[in-house]
Amino acid sequence: MVRIGVIGCGYWGPKLVRNFSQVPGAEVIAVADKRVERLAHLTGHAPDARLLTNPDELIAMREIDAVVIATPASTHYELASKALRAGKHVLVEKPLTPSSELGKRLIDEAARRNLVLMVDHTFVYTGAVRTMKQILDEGGVGDILYFDSVRINLGSFRHDVNVLWDLAAHDLSIMDFLLRRHPRAVSATGMSHVFGRTEDVGFLTLYFDDTLIAHVHANWLAPVKIRRALIGGSKQMIVYDDLEPADKIKVYDRGIVLDNDPERFGEVRIAYRTGEMRAPLVDTTEALRTAALHFIRCIMFGERPITDGEAGVRVVQILEAATQSMADRGKPVDVAAAHPPISAEKALPNSSHGNWAANARRL
Amino acid sequence: MVRIGVIGCGYWGPKLVRNFSQVPGAEVIAVADKRVERLAHLTGHAPDARLLTNPDELIAMREIDAVVIATPASTHYELASKALRAGKHVLVEKPLTPSSELGKRLIDEAARRNLVLMVDHTFVYTGAVRTMKQILDEGGVGDILYFDSVRINLGSFRHDVNVLWDLAAHDLSIMDFLLRRHPRAVSATGMSHVFGRTEDVGFLTLYFDDTLIAHVHANWLAPVKIRRALIGGSKQMIVYDDLEPADKIKVYDRGIVLDNDPERFGEVRIAYRTGEMRAPLVDTTEALRTAALHFIRCIMFGERPITDGEAGVRVVQILEAATQSMADRGKPVDVAAAHPPISAEKALPNSSHGNWAANARRL
Amino acid sequence: MVRIGVIGCGYWGPKLVRNFSQVPGAEVIAVADKRVERLAHLTGHAPDARLLTNPDELIAMREIDAVVIATPASTHYELASKALRAGKHVLVEKPLTPSSELGKRLIDEAARRNLVLMVDHTFVYTGAVRTMKQILDEGGVGDILYFDSVRINLGSFRHDVNVLWDLAAHDLSIMDFLLRRHPRAVSATGMSHVFGRTEDVGFLTLYFDDTLIAHVHANWLAPVKIRRALIGGSKQMIVYDDLEPADKIKVYDRGIVLDNDPERFGEVRIAYRTGEMRAPLVDTTEALRTAALHFIRCIMFGERPITDGEAGVRVVQILEAATQSMADRGKPVDVAAAHPPISAEKALPNSSHGNWAANARRL
Amino acid sequence: MVRIGVIGCGYWGPKLVRNFSQVPGAEVIAVADKRVERLAHLTGHAPDARLLTNPDELIAMREIDAVVIATPASTHYELASKALRAGKHVLVEKPLTPSSELGKRLIDEAARRNLVLMVDHTFVYTGAVRTMKQILDEGGVGDILYFDSVRINLGSFRHDVNVLWDLAAHDLSIMDFLLRRHPRAVSATGMSHVFGRTEDVGFLTLYFDDTLIAHVHANWLAPVKIRRALIGGSKQMIVYDDLEPADKIKVYDRGIVLDNDPERFGEVRIAYRTGEMRAPLVDTTEALRTAALHFIRCIMFGERPITDGEAGVRVVQILEAATQSMADRGKPVDVAAAHPPISAEKALPNSSHGNWAANARRL
Repeated sequence: MVRIGVIGCGYWGPKLVRNFSQVPGAEVIAVADKRVERLAHLTGHAPDARLLTNPDELIAMREIDAVVIATPASTHYELASKALRAGKHVLVEKPLTPSSELGKRLIDEAARRNLVLMVDHTFVYTGAVRTMKQILDEGGVGDILYFDSVRINLGSFRHDVNVLWDLAAHDLSIMDFLLRRHPRAVSATGMSHVFGRTEDVGFLTLYFDDTLIAHVHANWLAPVKIRRALIGGSKQMIVYDDLEPADKIKVYDRGIVLDNDPERFGEVRIAYRTGEMRAPLVDTTEALRTAALHFIRCIMFGERPITDGEAGVRVVQILEAATQSMADRGKPVDVAAAHPPISAEKALPNSSHGNWAANARRL
Repeated sequence: MVRIGVIGCGYWGPKLVRNFSQVPGAEVIAVADKRVERLAHLTGHAPDARLLTNPDELIAMREIDAVVIATPASTHYELASKALRAGKHVLVEKPLTPSSELGKRLIDEAARRNLVLMVDHTFVYTGAVRTMKQILDEGGVGDILYFDSVRINLGSFRHDVNVLWDLAAHDLSIMDFLLRRHPRAVSATGMSHVFGRTEDVGFLTLYFDDTLIAHVHANWLAPVKIRRALIGGSKQMIVYDDLEPADKIKVYDRGIVLDNDPERFGEVRIAYRTGEMRAPLVDTTEALRTAALHFIRCIMFGERPITDGEAGVRVVQILEAATQSMADRGKPVDVAAAHPPISAEKALPNSSHGNWAANARRL
Repeated sequence: MVRIGVIGCGYWGPKLVRNFSQVPGAEVIAVADKRVERLAHLTGHAPDARLLTNPDELIAMREIDAVVIATPASTHYELASKALRAGKHVLVEKPLTPSSELGKRLIDEAARRNLVLMVDHTFVYTGAVRTMKQILDEGGVGDILYFDSVRINLGSFRHDVNVLWDLAAHDLSIMDFLLRRHPRAVSATGMSHVFGRTEDVGFLTLYFDDTLIAHVHANWLAPVKIRRALIGGSKQMIVYDDLEPADKIKVYDRGIVLDNDPERFGEVRIAYRTGEMRAPLVDTTEALRTAALHFIRCIMFGERPITDGEAGVRVVQILEAATQSMADRGKPVDVAAAHPPISAEKALPNSSHGNWAANARRL
Repeated sequence: MVRIGVIGCGYWGPKLVRNFSQVPGAEVIAVADKRVERLAHLTGHAPDARLLTNPDELIAMREIDAVVIATPASTHYELASKALRAGKHVLVEKPLTPSSELGKRLIDEAARRNLVLMVDHTFVYTGAVRTMKQILDEGGVGDILYFDSVRINLGSFRHDVNVLWDLAAHDLSIMDFLLRRHPRAVSATGMSHVFGRTEDVGFLTLYFDDTLIAHVHANWLAPVKIRRALIGGSKQMIVYDDLEPADKIKVYDRGIVLDNDPERFGEVRIAYRTGEMRAPLVDTTEALRTAALHFIRCIMFGERPITDGEAGVRVVQILEAATQSMADRGKPVDVAAAHPPISAEKALPNSSHGNWAANARRL
């Protein structure tokens, strides 16, 4: 039984408490928030947990095995760092840290002490994204030509981070998981429409070593809510619409076919291919439940999380470069290389990918 | 009766012949295409028109008042220039010319001879775009914060121009008409996925003098067809979905409200406002018919077209800068100033805007 | 403070407990279910409520003012009857009773003792239906020509009632509230596809005194979920799509216009009128909360509920006739007259309609 | 080369002329309409056809092999009968005749003279319906539980027939083709909202020998256009949405699973099964082209049309019974037995079904 302490009782905190209380193998034994009134939002779940207003007190509790951090991003490093030094496994909400430099320090600290460090890239744990991963790994989609994601709606202006750190972070973490690719350079543009605030509309293009291109469009000021990604492959194409109640993933057997153009020597001719569309069944388990199970499993069996510290750092590296590019109206900015290099093989060392979710649920 | 000669009988040519044959006040008396087999596609419409394989012969016909050019972009300048020098009014398909420099020469030539020069920015003549113009001019939308357009589908790879010149040109001409604003700088990104071809996926951000930002997303390699623009105003927001069979324009009474935050001195507090949505009735007249009527009217009454040479040059200026930026992975490129400066007042000198479409149809 | 006892802790029971615990003016002091394990589903809400496995014990509690019944339909009469005889106000889930005869006895019992008897026709308390009521009462829709509702999905086969009693009951209660009309005759058709079970697909046509016609389509065996009603008026038409996340109600300024046909003496000519569509803002308060507030208010101020016993009986009368018609493959069956006659005036004796929801929320 | 004469130049006539002019193997050599001004609508197509205002003159033309009839339903019998007696093959627009009795006489006349008699049940020749037929014939859908179709929109009030004869006729012909089943009884309801006119809203339930049930909902007074059918099978379910630009056919691997309920002796337990959805590629050839090719082929090879006179009579039989039932507010009316009995085997005597469309196109 992994004994959990949760720090932060805002929007995500109570959901984390609920999920860690419900999954087998875990128990929430303490919850901390500086704002005592927030602790009232836990009604019902984890009724026996100790309620604290001082996070340090929670971190210091001997009986706690793992600390879950759901506080503002600016406090992630300090809290996670303290928890790791106190020998606790750590799960942090996204973004891992406000800078990649601090993220790397957490990775080192966790490695030194052989502790699990996981970032809650929450969409990675949805049935829809896991289904796409499986489709992509099976290879039928072919080479990936582009990844194009839109995440817009009216609302949730944030004080602390701009719209890319808030919304595009989700798309970047999904892409990191699905494609296992790290970009070379970023061009980002955006605008703030509220005096004194950060950008509320943002666009992000990622360049890679080859012809793969990725684009993310994030907007806090849109009249309608859209959460849709297109993944263009050389053989098939995927549309992922997270707002569809059913059929979130659609795989289109469409694309172009190239051959030599008999009329124009040395040129290729482009034909279009259109086949059937299919929408695979998508598991509807709450993402946070799957993430919680995965965290518990990693602790129990000494496995590396799918969204480990390195994944967290990679996303932050892109966001750092994007912020810099945005300040220069799209000027391309190099992204620091992933360290260690990202690869499909290393991603899931201790379990075959196909089974991790099943394993997680089996716990 | 304005006597029309049409050059080019590919995709658009027969449509132009049909429309100019059907509107009152015009008559198609000649059609030219170098490929004689294309002339067979005119079946039925303009049965009495002279069919030619040499455009120069058409331009030389004394009895022709106006020449309509629907050939590849690379030939626009030469043909339009000849036609103007022969004293003919000219309507050119978009883009006006392959470079802004050549476009300016056409403007000068037309001005010198007091001839009408019009570019067929065809979406400007749709009921949907005209309805949006009316809504924006009435002022209820407030200050325009952003213009964001997506135009993607599978197909129509072009040999001669990249995806921005092909698809984004439409969005830029719509924006030019609706907002009457010319950008200061462009950042564009994109990628070619077919060896030896131009970019098939492209993204474009436009910066202006103030906090207005515009973005266009164009893609020839998408599994689904999307043609949707969002216009974010400080008071209302518009969603324009060109693929909706009905209700193409939706006006949302939504936005943010700012006031001083009593808890954080000197900061604004952001609240969200949500009201009703309405979809105005949109005229369904074929855009080409309205454009044809407008061209005829401008010739008859010596008026300046809404999509005049200057509008054509402004769009080309943006595309030139975008092509340059795209080659540098998004590096911002200044856009040459519009000349004369674009303004709402100067746009429609000889008729009040509100009535132009009605007038056009009255002819 | 109205002290509430809730009987039945299945699907609806815990929701009722939660809502009555949260609204001002009420307090849940006891919950009963024969299945003791169901009482565990109340976690968190009403932590101080007495938990009982004998409903009679709950009804007998002196300190209880009102009893809320969320048990299978077959038990509604017995429990409600006992509660009324014990002097408690009563709120019953739909359908009020398995027969109209039993429903009338409850009405009489409540009237004799001056107690509130309310049936939870839950959709009547949604923002969408209340908005439609307001639109209809304003008169802009004109004469109502038809009411046509579809409620289908895969699942929730019921043991005790057929698909009309389960699903169409909702549509009938919405129609009863919106139109304040009671049908003269019913023709219903349907089929059971599972041996030994009741009809899982059903269709229902209602005839009235004039040309109004209503139709309900209910299906437990559909691959997709649809919940949509059309209301055709002589001036405007409404589409109500309950599954739309936003814009659930759309009012179309469309219809036909009649005049005398000059070409055919004595005949009318039909023209079509198309104008704008608008989607009014719809209140998103949980229906059960509004219903709970309304019940409390009726108790406090001695008012008659909008969905009173008579409304419950009217819906049951239609379902009784439908069941009979369905057994005869659509043979029309007369519906017993509403008693007292339904009328817009008598519907809301103690409060003006326009304000009831506002009043309810003000409590 | 089959020489065609077309009678009737209203809405369908010019489309028929265009298609028969374009398909290989046919030639339109005459067109007749009593209203001389309608003949002007043929511009371009069949420029060499003889234009007549007297249909009898067309029927009398020796050189004509086949007559295509696109006049009001009330004239179908007389014209088709004359054409058959003159030794011409006949294609009639739907409905075949105003009564089944007259339809049977045409069948006899055609049989006696060994001529092809075909009714243009046009949706049968769409790619979408043909794709559904293929899916159903492959057997994966299982036993058909229900067929449920909605066909509504604003407009096209007809003088001569009610909304069932106009719109539901399409659904009935689709069902006849897909299911090869003839109903035993009909219950139909409906209402006219325009004084002196026939029903503009109609509902139709069909009963068969087993638990199959079919329902059609037709409406000329709806604010939105819907053309959607659901086919519920014991293993899979189909949604056919004719207004979808792509993905018109969706096959859902969903349904219920029955087993014995261990808790309730002698009762079945119902579980729900949900799998993937797929949208097969649908051929987009114009239906009228495929129908024209099929008619030509049947003439050339002496084959029986898929939509032969018997199919036309079966649909008319249902509409006759529906009209009678509607007059009695849904009272069930027996449908006369199909003669000869409908069967999958007899349907396509001279060609295997799977190939007919391919064959048709090969001509």
